[in-house]
Amino acid sequence: MSTAAAAPSFDPCDPVAVAQALIRCPSVTPEDGGALGVLEAALAPLGFVCHRLRFEEEGTAPVDNLYARLGREGPNFCFAGHTDVVPPGELKGWSLDPFAAEIHNGRLYGRGAVDMKGAIAAFVAAAARHVKAGGAPKGSISLLITGDEEGVAINGTRKVLDWMQAKGEKLDACVVGEPTNPKALGDMIKIGRRGSMTAFLTVHGAQGHVAYPHLADNPLPRLARMLAAITAEPLDAGTPHFQPSNLELTTIDVGNPAHNVIPAQGKATLNIRFNDLHTADTLLAWLRERLDRVGGSYELDHFVSGDSFLTPPGPLTELVADAAERVTGRRPEYSTTGGTSDARFIKNFCPVVEFGLVGQTMHKVDEHTALDDLTRLTDIYGEVLRNVFDRLG
Amino acid sequence: MSTAAAAPSFDPCDPVAVAQALIRCPSVTPEDGGALGVLEAALAPLGFVCHRLRFEEEGTAPVDNLYARLGREGPNFCFAGHTDVVPPGELKGWSLDPFAAEIHNGRLYGRGAVDMKGAIAAFVAAAARHVKAGGAPKGSISLLITGDEEGVAINGTRKVLDWMQAKGEKLDACVVGEPTNPKALGDMIKIGRRGSMTAFLTVHGAQGHVAYPHLADNPLPRLARMLAAITAEPLDAGTPHFQPSNLELTTIDVGNPAHNVIPAQGKATLNIRFNDLHTADTLLAWLRERLDRVGGSYELDHFVSGDSFLTPPGPLTELVADAAERVTGRRPEYSTTGGTSDARFIKNFCPVVEFGLVGQTMHKVDEHTALDDLTRLTDIYGEVLRNVFDRLG
Ligand SMILES: [Zn+2]
Ligand SMILES: [Zn+2]
Repeated sequence: MSTAAAAPSFDPCDPVAVAQALIRCPSVTPEDGGALGVLEAALAPLGFVCHRLRFEEEGTAPVDNLYARLGREGPNFCFAGHTDVVPPGELKGWSLDPFAAEIHNGRLYGRGAVDMKGAIAAFVAAAARHVKAGGAPKGSISLLITGDEEGVAINGTRKVLDWMQAKGEKLDACVVGEPTNPKALGDMIKIGRRGSMTAFLTVHGAQGHVAYPHLADNPLPRLARMLAAITAEPLDAGTPHFQPSNLELTTIDVGNPAHNVIPAQGKATLNIRFNDLHTADTLLAWLRERLDRVGGSYELDHFVSGDSFLTPPGPLTELVADAAERVTGRRPEYSTTGGTSDARFIKNFCPVVEFGLVGQTMHKVDEHTALDDLTRLTDIYGEVLRNVFDRLG
Repeated sequence: MSTAAAAPSFDPCDPVAVAQALIRCPSVTPEDGGALGVLEAALAPLGFVCHRLRFEEEGTAPVDNLYARLGREGPNFCFAGHTDVVPPGELKGWSLDPFAAEIHNGRLYGRGAVDMKGAIAAFVAAAARHVKAGGAPKGSISLLITGDEEGVAINGTRKVLDWMQAKGEKLDACVVGEPTNPKALGDMIKIGRRGSMTAFLTVHGAQGHVAYPHLADNPLPRLARMLAAITAEPLDAGTPHFQPSNLELTTIDVGNPAHNVIPAQGKATLNIRFNDLHTADTLLAWLRERLDRVGGSYELDHFVSGDSFLTPPGPLTELVADAAERVTGRRPEYSTTGGTSDARFIKNFCPVVEFGLVGQTMHKVDEHTALDDLTRLTDIYGEVLRNVFDRLG
């Protein structure tokens, strides 16, 4: 626990200044690069009690995380996010230094500008303004910030939540600052996410010479028929809040360099993004039914990186949607599309929705956010803070 | 051209002695190991005019070959074979040294014992006996021996035949000494071979993220359906002298390590052993018809390592079958099964059949031939030499 309130070198009420300070920390996973220190310097003077949480596990790099809370009372409204960023990639593809946080034509450039240092900066500025305006919360405001979201996500949010549970730190509602808007601020709130399962299929046969196929058992025609069978029809037609579940073959590998040899086995990998009609067990049964119809000897391994989840439309989703509509003039769509986020861990503890900047340039060269979006997102988060305890209390 | 008649250190009329001398030459492709010198030493004293032919080509190892001819008149009856052998493989798998040519329990052991130094020795011994018995040929007897059959087959029989054509050296009939008998001497004469075509399929799509499949185009379901389609039904039902054509998938490779990435392309390789109903063109049309039915962007490359060919039952096949039946008491089956051999090149110049030892241990550890088989094969080849000019002249 750290409560040392070093005066920040920037104005915490200015989201652009906070975002610039964050982007200038080269926090490519698993490096912190000073990013959490920037947040502590901004939050501690406002009264937030800051906990720096360093987690490690054999085979993974240690990662720093931050849990900061203002107030001791419930309910505890939490903003969750990550300061780590994906690597900048080819530097010569960038028009501006990815860690310089330069402003050009009304846009702030840099790795993490939209995913998601910009959103963190907007929430910090909203909280600073809220506190300085004397808006004493009728509960607690907290930030759960990890440095392990873009990486293996082992020493990040999941372990912070375990630590919080052990400490009796309860969460009552959470907004994750991922860049949820496809094109314009106010487009979309994510109210859930599809689950993700990766499965590994190995089909066995018996090696031999192509000229003597009766002495061998080629597994590849069976593999082809299995893969054709599991991609022949959709898993489902979708549900009220979810797209249809979707299966993608990601690789098929045999690695037999000899054109005259029948191989002994073939392997394929597939990934399923699934909605609330499915669990890993129902998916495996669906797969096995089709594989068994082809027959022969095979193995099917899998791992689930997240089950599907949904925060049904209600007080939390409307709180955020109303705030976004008030600032942007547009009513955000409720969506469950796209990839996974740390909301998959938080949903086990409290209702969670995601709303942040416009995602178009995330993970790309010249990642940037409009300064106007940063300002308006700060206003949206401020509106949420003003209403959250009345509406969710 | 070399006619130096160094006296051999073995009796050329003894097939076991000749076979031992050959096996003791470690002639793993492309090494000669002294094997062709053994043959020259046996043949030159009998009156054979020996031509050592060394061929090379950029990107391949130079290889020695031998063309030896007794007599200047036509018709020219040729025995064709190869002194090169496949590597012995795991030496500890062998009971006896693969290059020691040791005799144990009535069997001669060593790499090449059946494929095909034993058969070459049998023909040399048959020719030596024939000459010493005063059987002046009413034509010519020749041997076409290559050191590049088990390898890439670029600097071997094909180039010897080109050289012969350039020199006006005509062939009228040929027996290749490959080990054609599945179980017992006299089982089988090969009167043709299926063709072999290898094809390379690349299916194109567009890379993307598994969570956003509408922004990508996964080529793997199409690849799976294509491979299922081309393995769903046989190419044909066979012909009077040929097995059904057969297609084997040998590998499928994508090589995408990222479980969340839809790959841009997938590749597969297939080999077709085809009978006289097909050519490369009809096979490619057959494949394209099925691939086009699935659709999408793909490439299909191929190479043909040999077209199918047949020496229809007639004077040459009966000459060899009668000789085998007379010695073994069994009438050989005419077959076109199995892999390719250099007969695929010779068939463009004269009728060709294949008959040699029992193939069971070829390319395996403890390769060996029964001494009795060596003796009887010598008798069969001798019977062929006694009758060939009367019956084919
Ligand atoms: Zn993110
Ligand atoms: Zn051979």
